[in-house]
Amino acid sequence: MPTPAASFESITHRVVVVGGGFGGLAAAMALKREAVRVTLVDRRNFHLFQPLLYQVATGGLSPANIAAPLRALLKRQSNADVLLGEVIGFDAQRQKVLLADGEVEYDSLIVAAGVRHHYFGNDEWERLAPGLKSVEDALEMRRRLLLAFEAAERETDETRRAAWLTFVIVGGGPTGVELAGAIAELSRHTLRRNFRRINPASARILLVEGADRLLPPYAADLSAKAKQQLERLGVEVRTGVRVSQIEPDSVMLLGGDEAELIETRTVLWGAGVKASPLGRKLAEATGVETDRGGRVVVEHDCSLPGYENIFVIGDLANFQHGDDEQPLPGVAPVAIQQGKYVARRIVHRLLGRETHPFRYRDLGGMAVIGRASAVADLLGLHLSGVPAWLAWLFVHLMSLVGFENRILVLLQWSWNYFTRNRAARLITGDDTLPHVGAAAEQQAAESTTSTP
Amino acid sequence: MPTPAASFESITHRVVVVGGGFGGLAAAMALKREAVRVTLVDRRNFHLFQPLLYQVATGGLSPANIAAPLRALLKRQSNADVLLGEVIGFDAQRQKVLLADGEVEYDSLIVAAGVRHHYFGNDEWERLAPGLKSVEDALEMRRRLLLAFEAAERETDETRRAAWLTFVIVGGGPTGVELAGAIAELSRHTLRRNFRRINPASARILLVEGADRLLPPYAADLSAKAKQQLERLGVEVRTGVRVSQIEPDSVMLLGGDEAELIETRTVLWGAGVKASPLGRKLAEATGVETDRGGRVVVEHDCSLPGYENIFVIGDLANFQHGDDEQPLPGVAPVAIQQGKYVARRIVHRLLGRETHPFRYRDLGGMAVIGRASAVADLLGLHLSGVPAWLAWLFVHLMSLVGFENRILVLLQWSWNYFTRNRAARLITGDDTLPHVGAAAEQQAAESTTSTP
Repeated sequence: MPTPAASFESITHRVVVVGGGFGGLAAAMALKREAVRVTLVDRRNFHLFQPLLYQVATGGLSPANIAAPLRALLKRQSNADVLLGEVIGFDAQRQKVLLADGEVEYDSLIVAAGVRHHYFGNDEWERLAPGLKSVEDALEMRRRLLLAFEAAERETDETRRAAWLTFVIVGGGPTGVELAGAIAELSRHTLRRNFRRINPASARILLVEGADRLLPPYAADLSAKAKQQLERLGVEVRTGVRVSQIEPDSVMLLGGDEAELIETRTVLWGAGVKASPLGRKLAEATGVETDRGGRVVVEHDCSLPGYENIFVIGDLANFQHGDDEQPLPGVAPVAIQQGKYVARRIVHRLLGRETHPFRYRDLGGMAVIGRASAVADLLGLHLSGVPAWLAWLFVHLMSLVGFENRILVLLQWSWNYFTRNRAARLITGDDTLPHVGAAAEQQAAESTTSTP
Repeated sequence: MPTPAASFESITHRVVVVGGGFGGLAAAMALKREAVRVTLVDRRNFHLFQPLLYQVATGGLSPANIAAPLRALLKRQSNADVLLGEVIGFDAQRQKVLLADGEVEYDSLIVAAGVRHHYFGNDEWERLAPGLKSVEDALEMRRRLLLAFEAAERETDETRRAAWLTFVIVGGGPTGVELAGAIAELSRHTLRRNFRRINPASARILLVEGADRLLPPYAADLSAKAKQQLERLGVEVRTGVRVSQIEPDSVMLLGGDEAELIETRTVLWGAGVKASPLGRKLAEATGVETDRGGRVVVEHDCSLPGYENIFVIGDLANFQHGDDEQPLPGVAPVAIQQGKYVARRIVHRLLGRETHPFRYRDLGGMAVIGRASAVADLLGLHLSGVPAWLAWLFVHLMSLVGFENRILVLLQWSWNYFTRNRAARLITGDDTLPHVGAAAEQQAAESTTSTP
């Protein structure tokens, strides 16, 4: 294998990127004009724009609107190759990525495998309170949300009906806030007049956050604004409250010394994330350290201690910065900036050049709450309401990959804005419907009796 | 419930419609201004525009583009109610529809439960050669098509690679023709430059039809045109050929006395359909006759012999017409016209009026083959190529339910036309990837050796 050199002529440097999310894709694309060969390995054949996944979960957009096939994205990049495969480990000595059905050699390795949901040791909650990381997650959430209204419509027992119409969202970060807002709009507006027995607007929506305010990483004034806007939509915001138990028909909330049992059939998880298991696999293969969340602790150039040619970026990396050595947050801009950075770092190494340490350029953050309602921190400028919402729309539309997706999403958003419709509210997937007791019989009886 | 209309004062006539497809929905909507109460029962919460399902299967459109929530469609129809439920049978004596979890009483019943795939006694083929009737079917087909190209890319054995790149479509009716054409365009155009080891355009696409020509119900000149246009796209058309065996890696074709084994990993089923099992359930409950395909033989007003208040319409009905008493074809226009007819018939019965027998107004038929390529029979006028394609586009866009869907589909079609892209080519659903032997290892080895 040729080694880096001043002249590119003989360079056949192989860069393997694990994961086609924000970080991995940014790294692969940033290597477009470089004299390296890039192999992007992913289990899925598409890049997913996760920040809009909650809109798929609430019927506003279709999965294809927020996804783009990796091969299509890289088709004009002749030095790049996509490999659809399942990574199961690493061999750092022989410089190989191990797949379920083979292996791939690398000279430089970028691991950007991201995170999964995390239930803080209560893995049995996963079945009861699905999280939101993949297209399948979003479709399952959509299915549960829509079926809850259907079941409520057929349920005749008041208490059980109320449980079907109670939605608990765990976690007051951006995902939880956005889900709660979207479910409020779904029930208050989109489903209006869709049912004959229930009033969907009577749905009770609880947003539960363990910290003492929503959106804990943001400034306190934005947290307050978010709470206020959510409450205007009819969401009950519970801060300083933890979930201590989840059952198929209830959750137990603990706030201070008080416990409250909420009867609900729909609990959605927007709380914890945990590093992909590949973080630990990589740590095992290299002897480096992972943090409590399973993230890999990286150097100031995103490489592993002792492995100049292995990089971890994005949500999977614990990149300590600042005086208190806090890890950078798990957000798309960090991943993208790190992806671009390590691409440059790899090229510099080949040329024998130094690279300054990675520095995160924090542009702020934002969360949308509903129609014309959002909070945003843009380079320290705090916005809420319509200005924040417009900023959110602009940033998200521009960040979507693919011109076609942008147009389609813009069109659907405009449509949804004016009609309050969410056309993609299909119940698909599992073929079975939940039984709701003798509700249908009762419904027929009602039809017979409720005559003038 | 208040009832409108002059002499209707005391009418509380309950119409139950089973099935929200073309027929059932047309019937329910046609009863909008009538003094009856309509309950539309379906297992799914949406109406599906099945004629465009092949575009979902080939990544051109998203499921939500060709579906519309039943509740949204009927929300302004105050005399209509949607019940999401699984019908398991009928009690004609007590006038009840039996659900998996209850029952619904009717005064008039319209059964429009449609058809399923039919494998002519080879039910084990269903797993090997999926059909195309539901959203889930289409996503499974999309998954298999796209994974076949992925597997071919990673397969290094020539023969096995060729099998991954061979696609056999069984059945030369509109579904088979449209699938074959779309797969040809996918491989010839959409996937161009997407792969580094295979040339997707080298894919072999076989369309197999047992009759001696494609689109047997159409005129012979249109069959010939369809064949010619498919061949121009590189599809091998085999007429007069039957499939005698399907295995995971091959199909056996029988034409006359000749047998041919085709090695393929992807077989798609567009051949037979069989009535929904509800046809037989209804026949059991009423003692009426079903035909060999399980369709219910109906009277000239679409009612059951001896049951003036039970109607069967659409694909599930065997409506004999003409001198040779041939059943009407299982196409959307028949179902829609029958739906509107039985709505009128029910109202007339209530008023004690006669209704002339149902007469099908045959406007013709059409099948699209590809970009600017189709065949159509419009009121006896035979079109092919661009004129037929424009007619197909117009008819299908206008028939789509929902203005938003029309706009979104038009936009995506325009985009797909000019870019030859199919953005919805996501591999979703099942989480597991197929293993393709030691292909990945080989790929890594190639990377090392194929240096400039």
